[in-house]
Amino acid sequence: MTSAMDNRQAHGPLVLSIDAMGSDRGPATIVAGLSAFARKHRDVRFLLHGPEAELRPLVDKHKGLPAQVEIRDASGVVSMEDKPSHVMRNGQDTSMWSTVDAVRNREATVAVSCGNTGALMLLSMVRLRKLPGVNRPAIAVLWPSRNPQGYNVMLDVGADIRADADDLLKYAMMGASYARNGLNLERPRIGLLNVGTEEHKGRAELKAAHELIAANAEAGSFDYVGFVEGGDIPGKRCDVIVTDGFTGNIALKTGEGTASLINSLLREAFTYSPLSRLAALLALSSLKRLQARVDPRRKNGGVFLGLNGTVVKSHGAADATGVAAAVELAYDLAQSGFGDRLAARVASAAASADTEATADPAEATDTKKNGTGI
Amino acid sequence: MTSAMDNRQAHGPLVLSIDAMGSDRGPATIVAGLSAFARKHRDVRFLLHGPEAELRPLVDKHKGLPAQVEIRDASGVVSMEDKPSHVMRNGQDTSMWSTVDAVRNREATVAVSCGNTGALMLLSMVRLRKLPGVNRPAIAVLWPSRNPQGYNVMLDVGADIRADADDLLKYAMMGASYARNGLNLERPRIGLLNVGTEEHKGRAELKAAHELIAANAEAGSFDYVGFVEGGDIPGKRCDVIVTDGFTGNIALKTGEGTASLINSLLREAFTYSPLSRLAALLALSSLKRLQARVDPRRKNGGVFLGLNGTVVKSHGAADATGVAAAVELAYDLAQSGFGDRLAARVASAAASADTEATADPAEATDTKKNGTGI
Repeated sequence: MTSAMDNRQAHGPLVLSIDAMGSDRGPATIVAGLSAFARKHRDVRFLLHGPEAELRPLVDKHKGLPAQVEIRDASGVVSMEDKPSHVMRNGQDTSMWSTVDAVRNREATVAVSCGNTGALMLLSMVRLRKLPGVNRPAIAVLWPSRNPQGYNVMLDVGADIRADADDLLKYAMMGASYARNGLNLERPRIGLLNVGTEEHKGRAELKAAHELIAANAEAGSFDYVGFVEGGDIPGKRCDVIVTDGFTGNIALKTGEGTASLINSLLREAFTYSPLSRLAALLALSSLKRLQARVDPRRKNGGVFLGLNGTVVKSHGAADATGVAAAVELAYDLAQSGFGDRLAARVASAAASADTEATADPAEATDTKKNGTGI
Repeated sequence: MTSAMDNRQAHGPLVLSIDAMGSDRGPATIVAGLSAFARKHRDVRFLLHGPEAELRPLVDKHKGLPAQVEIRDASGVVSMEDKPSHVMRNGQDTSMWSTVDAVRNREATVAVSCGNTGALMLLSMVRLRKLPGVNRPAIAVLWPSRNPQGYNVMLDVGADIRADADDLLKYAMMGASYARNGLNLERPRIGLLNVGTEEHKGRAELKAAHELIAANAEAGSFDYVGFVEGGDIPGKRCDVIVTDGFTGNIALKTGEGTASLINSLLREAFTYSPLSRLAALLALSSLKRLQARVDPRRKNGGVFLGLNGTVVKSHGAADATGVAAAVELAYDLAQSGFGDRLAARVASAAASADTEATADPAEATDTKKNGTGI
């Protein structure tokens, strides 16, 4: 088995692996988003996976892009309806498979795909394999919040429908790493999602996780704020919300659905009468400012954590702006060496758990001295 | 044991049992809300529970109210911090106990309280007892939605953190009853909350509940749309969302938190510059229209279902408008004979489940003929 610490790219330009297929809007949108990002980062290179005959003209349309892109011909496409197990058995020729394998082969640091989440997760798990010490990988998202950084991290939002106490501890470690690298928080505050903040509430595995996460806060260089509630996901009590993938998925979609309903009602309210349409015109810049703060496209991308390699899952319906945001996220994570840092951190947690969850002050201090904690 | 069908009030004016204490804003707010409702319904009578010396002057301030109100002196107050089990052991002198017992003694049809949810649930369960066939009672709420009726029903939002397949079936029956009586939907569409709409997804108890609810749709006079996702809670795919109390509580609070964040950001956006403040002035009526649609005060109140008697839990922070809405909801449910209808419906489901979940067409047809399905 490959050690996670060996999983570094050779020196040279930073390379990202991009799945051109699987978007609801087609490959032209992916290439447009890629080009928007590439214009600002001419030193980054891309492996772009999909049918070459289709992709070549799309890439050639964007000035400067061809020099940054190497197309990897792959004729198969994973559709949103394909069962993950079917893709795993028969998907060797697909662009998704090729995208993930470029990270597996260390040709690229981070993979980005808009495709079928279940298939992407299963492919990533099998091809990249789980990090030592991780039983269940997780999908983490950024969520608009009242915190100064504007976003909170929530995980798992759907990699697995179950999580035991040890999984939740690993999610806390991984979420803290992600918040440090993705949101620049030196010492993220972790909350464990529950139906109340009292210690006696909730399911048995949550009480066990509560103890375990508290005991590992020092080793993980995070602060543990204890149980938090649904209202704290967009709140400011903590920076990272830890939960199982069933609950996290439902919370994510409930939040998105509520935001979308309010958005529709806001539009309705502003087209109700001539006066309200005039008001809307005047309010345009205010409404745009609001939109920018809660626009999911600005922070598009769930990140698969706990594997030998980082995979960014972009929304299937993302437009070019959304794709560019997902690629930007992949770039940020690749540049900070996030994958290796996360692996080292989880390994230390695993070791720490092996010695009965005692904190290792030496490790924590060392991390602080470097000023580059994962 | 008392049969649920005997649980009718004697002929005479409709009586509601109101807990004057336990609100974050104090009893004056409760009385003000009660008075606002009472002005529109001079034929309704109220049993108002709390310290008489404190309540009498509050009631006397509202013209016409004293004639409708009978104060039931109770010196004790359940605080938000009190443990439910403590209230159960030592709370006989509290206004909450007295409020619930008035329904138990059939002096009133529906109880309303703003107090501690856990204590109110436990008191209601012990004093009113569960309906035959119900293992876990549920709390149902109305949620702003894209449906024509403007609201969907969701349950359970926190009565119990667990629910097995049979509990979820009972929630479907009870939720359908509530939608018929609270939202005037003749044949509500029921959805079972899951992380995907595919039949193979989700936890084992959800797959079992899926079969069970589908098999009882005819007997329950509802349509079953299958699995729904978090985004469907404010959506239009179904009218009633069935889930366990852990998931439902987190979804409810996530939705409330998201709406509240957007509300704050909207205010910020409209006070950003002189121009945006002018726009806000012009947009005032539009924004008020939006506010009215998502204002939780308009549909304030979780309803405890599955007990021998109906209890409405108002939000602890509700203002007079919110309290009036909770009393209005209690009135609507009392007037439609909801409690008895629900009991009959659940009893029929229990009987139906006993005979291996076969639908009883006779019962369903009978209900339809009456045109007054529960």
